[in-house]
Amino acid sequence: MSVLVQNREVLEWISEEYHGMNGSHVETLQAAPSPLEFSRICHISRPVLIKGYTIPKLRQWSDSYLSGRMNESLISVAVTPDGYADAIASGPDGKKYFVEPHVSQMTMASLLRNLNATGDAGPEAYYLQSQNGNLFSSAYFDQEVEDTQSELHPLRDDVPAEIPWCSEALGRHPDAVNLWIGNGQSVTSIHSDPYENIYHVVRGRKTFLLLPPTEGWCLEERLYPHAIYSRPDASSPLVAVPSPSDTPPIRWSSITHPERPGSLPPQAHPICISVSAGETLYLPAGWWHHVRQSDDITIALNWWYDIEPRGMAWIWLNLLRGIGNVPPANDVDEDVAQDDHRHRTAHPIP
Amino acid sequence: MSVLVQNREVLEWISEEYHGMNGSHVETLQAAPSPLEFSRICHISRPVLIKGYTIPKLRQWSDSYLSGRMNESLISVAVTPDGYADAIASGPDGKKYFVEPHVSQMTMASLLRNLNATGDAGPEAYYLQSQNGNLFSSAYFDQEVEDTQSELHPLRDDVPAEIPWCSEALGRHPDAVNLWIGNGQSVTSIHSDPYENIYHVVRGRKTFLLLPPTEGWCLEERLYPHAIYSRPDASSPLVAVPSPSDTPPIRWSSITHPERPGSLPPQAHPICISVSAGETLYLPAGWWHHVRQSDDITIALNWWYDIEPRGMAWIWLNLLRGIGNVPPANDVDEDVAQDDHRHRTAHPIP
Ligand SMILES: O=C(O)CCC(=O)C(=O)O
Ligand SMILES: O=C(O)CCC(=O)C(=O)O
Repeated sequence: MSVLVQNREVLEWISEEYHGMNGSHVETLQAAPSPLEFSRICHISRPVLIKGYTIPKLRQWSDSYLSGRMNESLISVAVTPDGYADAIASGPDGKKYFVEPHVSQMTMASLLRNLNATGDAGPEAYYLQSQNGNLFSSAYFDQEVEDTQSELHPLRDDVPAEIPWCSEALGRHPDAVNLWIGNGQSVTSIHSDPYENIYHVVRGRKTFLLLPPTEGWCLEERLYPHAIYSRPDASSPLVAVPSPSDTPPIRWSSITHPERPGSLPPQAHPICISVSAGETLYLPAGWWHHVRQSDDITIALNWWYDIEPRGMAWIWLNLLRGIGNVPPANDVDEDVAQDDHRHRTAHPIP
Repeated sequence: MSVLVQNREVLEWISEEYHGMNGSHVETLQAAPSPLEFSRICHISRPVLIKGYTIPKLRQWSDSYLSGRMNESLISVAVTPDGYADAIASGPDGKKYFVEPHVSQMTMASLLRNLNATGDAGPEAYYLQSQNGNLFSSAYFDQEVEDTQSELHPLRDDVPAEIPWCSEALGRHPDAVNLWIGNGQSVTSIHSDPYENIYHVVRGRKTFLLLPPTEGWCLEERLYPHAIYSRPDASSPLVAVPSPSDTPPIRWSSITHPERPGSLPPQAHPICISVSAGETLYLPAGWWHHVRQSDDITIALNWWYDIEPRGMAWIWLNLLRGIGNVPPANDVDEDVAQDDHRHRTAHPIP
């Protein structure tokens, strides 16, 4: 299988053909698609910006409403020194690591207070981004186990468990529904997921930088040793603490700032798309995304649906990522890749 | 681009993964799909056998009805010595050629008489297979030019110009609608088309041997010089007459009998599927097919719809065929490939 990534020329050919046929166009719909329209859209597998799909109950999501609903319940919030959770950063030894955020438990009221007070609150960034189906997880849809785990349970009344036109188009329920609450400090580093993603902005604005699956090779994935931000003692700043040496390395893009001019090779055709409150982005499975948000509190919801396991989609995504051939990031001898650790892989490679 | 076909290992990896994920299953539907169901089916792009989609007016298609309707109009019928029209055969010099049929003009009554009388009529095979949209062509759907060209015009009243659930699913009209009339003598050699194909059997039975696009490399395409069957004089048997040497060579599978055990490599997983009168096969774009038919007169209709040009489908099909790297069949020095000459290419490679 070592042939796969050696074949840079094949990958270049595919990405050139793909861009030649598709360009960088993103379609905008003025209303929610019908299930049939959305099925066609999924078949084409290009991003679409959907205006006019609104979720009425979300209009009441003021800070005080959210704090009141959530009351004293504690929620898991990612804390990082620089706003990058799940991203590449230098460790204490100067080597590059894939660093997971410190997770802090706090009430909704303190999260919102922290997010509103960024300047005063010091340099640390807070981001509710637990993305394990923090609103509805597969346990909820499977209905085999009683699903009372969600930290955000009190907000469920306001959020539809599924997007009707998407569930009907795909013929299945979502796999996870997540709430994201952050501010301009937080950035999600570029990655791709094996999910069809319906991403709805509730408040503020999100800016997505996208690359099609065909241009993944431009992102030069590497294998990074794993670390987690923690505090040596309760009052010290966060530092990246390397995980035990038998923790599997993480494959991740070595391009940490794809939004900066010159950081991507000329063969890449990034698409920049801004999603405002009330708008919804369809982000097809396998598309690479880097996500920033407006300065003030930004709230979003997303519904992840498993990729279609039949047909070719899954195989193409694996081919394009050149499974199993990711070089190590530092000069260490590591050759066991682990897939995106953040989201479980929908269907393992046979 | 020469890297593409050299990469046999990549092609083997893809076909193994594809078969591992999909197996050789062909779904059967007991009724016509809804447009949404068919959209999902096209997304998966695997063959489906549809029972219960009937076209009432075709019940009256007896020999005498067809002959009566067509009256004295002449139609173009393929005549070959062995039943293989558009297939590989030896030329007078012993070299292998891609040989097109002799085309003979006759009335529907004589075609049906010839097909019914095979034993007595001598060794030649007749097959109405002009497949240029012989019932409805793109000129009909474009409605820009008055479309009065169809030789089979008198039969149009009985045949729907489109398949409603397919047109609605794909959001377009067919590109061509064809009538096929033959008997057990005629075989269509293995090839693939850049069309979504709705293939409906009216009378008799068709047997399809299918390979997914991922297994095309097992068919060892070669470039063949072109020839046409003709008669040195009016009463002599047909011989393959090589075309002028500047006629572009044709790329075609060198496996002339994929239905014979041992003719395909072990990595190929042929699917054999029988389509009886009243049944409809959805044959997705890019799937390889070899087609035989029952001994008695066999009648079929098919609707070709252009492949979706957006997204990845077109690029994958080209990658799998390793565009531009087909070796010559004989020891001749020919390196300019022409695409399947029979059906025009939906979207040229940029
Ligand atoms: O909103 C974000 O920060 C990231 C979203 C994301 O990565 C996703 O929905 O997959
Ligand atoms: O029916 C046949 O003989 C061949 C059909 C075919 O090749 C097609 O529909 O593409």
